[in-house]
Amino acid sequence: LDRLWLVAPKSFPCAEATARASGADDVLARARVCHTLDEALSGCRLVAGSSARLRAVPCPSLAPQAGAERLVAESRLAPVALLFGRESAGLSNEEIDRCHLLVHIPANPQYSSLNLASAVQVLAYELRVASGVSGPEPLRSEITDDVAEAGQLEGFFGHLEQALFDLGFAHPRQADKLLRRLRRLFLRARPTTEEINILRGILSAAQGRKSMRR
Amino acid sequence: LDRLWLVAPKSFPCAEATARASGADDVLARARVCHTLDEALSGCRLVAGSSARLRAVPCPSLAPQAGAERLVAESRLAPVALLFGRESAGLSNEEIDRCHLLVHIPANPQYSSLNLASAVQVLAYELRVASGVSGPEPLRSEITDDVAEAGQLEGFFGHLEQALFDLGFAHPRQADKLLRRLRRLFLRARPTTEEINILRGILSAAQGRKSMRR
Repeated sequence: LDRLWLVAPKSFPCAEATARASGADDVLARARVCHTLDEALSGCRLVAGSSARLRAVPCPSLAPQAGAERLVAESRLAPVALLFGRESAGLSNEEIDRCHLLVHIPANPQYSSLNLASAVQVLAYELRVASGVSGPEPLRSEITDDVAEAGQLEGFFGHLEQALFDLGFAHPRQADKLLRRLRRLFLRARPTTEEINILRGILSAAQGRKSMRR
Repeated sequence: LDRLWLVAPKSFPCAEATARASGADDVLARARVCHTLDEALSGCRLVAGSSARLRAVPCPSLAPQAGAERLVAESRLAPVALLFGRESAGLSNEEIDRCHLLVHIPANPQYSSLNLASAVQVLAYELRVASGVSGPEPLRSEITDDVAEAGQLEGFFGHLEQALFDLGFAHPRQADKLLRRLRRLFLRARPTTEEINILRGILSAAQGRKSMRR
């Protein structure tokens, strides 16, 4: 919880933030600033997003306790990230596309969107609770040290997009929706580094045929 | 959670409080103002105090989840109260003397005293979870009715094998091992029927390029 990454902050360092941090300004002082989300997520094996919204594209969603247990358990094997959006608008679709799962805080449906600080507090609390108990061990068959990190996944998704374009498969109008579906599929599978390499090899083979044909 | 009692507030109604309440100003508007704590607690059968302090006088102390479950269970029999202190100094000894039990939020020992708003948020969250109104889990499962059945999966794997062969990607000696790995990847993802159709469409596009080349 003391490793805070800030993506493209409006102003940082910020006197108001330092004042509000009160005795916790050491966390702010050590915060890492990134220009892009992908940079911040680089190296993370599991990315969980905090979201109040129900979404059209199915994305696995966990209650805070279950989400915290999962994050704590996996953090013992590899870096994990808990991702928060803006105070005003939360996470964008493109940001949620990076998430393996969402954590949803149950709330009064008539007032379901918590302040950012409130959401952080609830999840920080559940993470602390989860860290004290021996949470359920991740299934060995499901999670290995070799699960691909965020940069490898983004490299693959970029390659996939290009390959679909080269194959003439993705019509521009459908491409975003199609790619989002494929993202969900592959994020669910938690590919290993080796599997990503195999998949990219297949994509290259498909593209190669095309360029040979030219 | 919508029955708020204020004991000897410095100023009420208060324009700043109303502004900060945002969409929840109905709770403030209905708040009852009392001169003494005893007046506010009149009629309550169980009083739980929120406290970060360890106390010299022994008082039963529960974790938030256990405390919330107790409050919710007893609230079905008779009125209960959850008591918060001042932002600056928490509850006094005399106020804690009124409590049947304390609820203690676990936190970093080096920074163990939460803001009042943070403590209220954590306990309101645990009360909501304990009340069960949010259901066992707002879970959007990874598994839907639409998960592809075995025959659809085998059809896809057969198509995949043929496509890899057509692309010249799978050398016969490695093909079995490669296909087995890809099987594991896709079985882990639990593709839906629609996703299988998308994947087969991509395979057909890749194969189509090849046959056009012939």
